[in-house]
Amino acid sequence: MRNKLLVLKLGGSVITEKARPLTPNFPAIKRLADEIFQAQPSKLILVHGGGSFGHPIAKKYGIVDGFKDKSQLAGFSETHEAMVSLNMIILESLLRKGVPAFGMAPSSFIITKSGRIHVFSKETLKQAVKIGLVPVLYGDVVLDLNMGFTVLSGDQLASFLAEKMKAQRLIMGVDVDGIFTDDPKKNLSALLIQHLTLAELKNPKNRISGTGVTDVTGGMLGKVSELTLLVTKGIETMIVNASKSGNIYKVLKGEKVVGTKIEP
Amino acid sequence: MRNKLLVLKLGGSVITEKARPLTPNFPAIKRLADEIFQAQPSKLILVHGGGSFGHPIAKKYGIVDGFKDKSQLAGFSETHEAMVSLNMIILESLLRKGVPAFGMAPSSFIITKSGRIHVFSKETLKQAVKIGLVPVLYGDVVLDLNMGFTVLSGDQLASFLAEKMKAQRLIMGVDVDGIFTDDPKKNLSALLIQHLTLAELKNPKNRISGTGVTDVTGGMLGKVSELTLLVTKGIETMIVNASKSGNIYKVLKGEKVVGTKIEP
Repeated sequence: MRNKLLVLKLGGSVITEKARPLTPNFPAIKRLADEIFQAQPSKLILVHGGGSFGHPIAKKYGIVDGFKDKSQLAGFSETHEAMVSLNMIILESLLRKGVPAFGMAPSSFIITKSGRIHVFSKETLKQAVKIGLVPVLYGDVVLDLNMGFTVLSGDQLASFLAEKMKAQRLIMGVDVDGIFTDDPKKNLSALLIQHLTLAELKNPKNRISGTGVTDVTGGMLGKVSELTLLVTKGIETMIVNASKSGNIYKVLKGEKVVGTKIEP
Repeated sequence: MRNKLLVLKLGGSVITEKARPLTPNFPAIKRLADEIFQAQPSKLILVHGGGSFGHPIAKKYGIVDGFKDKSQLAGFSETHEAMVSLNMIILESLLRKGVPAFGMAPSSFIITKSGRIHVFSKETLKQAVKIGLVPVLYGDVVLDLNMGFTVLSGDQLASFLAEKMKAQRLIMGVDVDGIFTDDPKKNLSALLIQHLTLAELKNPKNRISGTGVTDVTGGMLGKVSELTLLVTKGIETMIVNASKSGNIYKVLKGEKVVGTKIEP
């Protein structure tokens, strides 16, 4: 049984200045907090990416490749703390607008195995949503049963939560209009794909390009592979441009918006 | 089988200016970070209290009494965020000294039932300690199966972890020399109890006084009741004055130090 729960992922490129280390995009964060407040979704889980908070530190210490020596331990912790700082900024904006947002640390309760979520308990999330809180999670460093530790992308987390929490829809807020036939930032003749079926998503001839900036967790290609898994489970997914004012409000309200809709 | 794991609780009165809201005691935090680094315990889990970060906000919103109306939700989240801020300050000091400290959020993976820990998984803590990290947890607001939410004291958490993680010893760092026959801050003739057995701890004639400052989680009386439960499980506990320089170093090294030792 699906309930009214929505899972909304806000990409790191939307909420941070991705080319400048540790720089939040305050106008975007405040606008999005307001759109979420105005839309008043009855049940919502938010996941945000790392952008210029998580990625540069994770890359410096090679966290995504796993534990090799003790000198990485501080880097593991520092990457997490950078994500906590970003999470606090987002929470403060949401709380100020009136959204009962509640920060949750993925690394405190999720363990991966070779990079895929392996240990997870939904109890805290379930209780939080039940009393009316809006849990706000994020891409994080996590302990890994085979690698010691690694990076858990916000994309994997959002897709996983949408499935495990039996969400009605997963909304991926990115900084482009959706999935294109090529990278729209490099190729002006790239076309937006407005509707994708699972069969089309799995077809290797649908070449979907990544974006260029440092992203230890996979960019658009990573997103598409996470979504392929999710769509298999029957959950509708919408990729929309969260950098454009009003899109997140509309998609949360169920209104028509430009983007890529992926259905089973 | 006990391993070499130590659980160290640092009281909120030690690491914050308890009478001044949101004020860390930086000199104490830096000194303790250095003592922990110098002692180089092979396996350690840290828990810290809320002091002037957690208690005033939790009290304002009546978090300890449970969920009564929606207006408390923001207060629940704000209390947690205040604790996250304090945790970040402590982590930064520890990392700077060279301790591979790793922040973990109790509310992300612990649920209580009528105020007592009910849902808990030790997997992340176990993996973190295994690769050489020093998990740093704290007293936190938590979701509660009967009350909606409540406050989980650092004392309950530290005692619980010492038991579940099969610690060798639990060390409670407080701002007095140990358990006294009366409140030593009010009664100058109060005597330090250097050794307590479970039988003595359970005897109601041993009147052990609380301290006066706002503490939503029970002060010294709360500590003693948590320890009674713990000592039943056969874990040695030491209460020492962490406000006095060198005590935490000594107790982590297993050296003799003034305080109250509680044994089965």
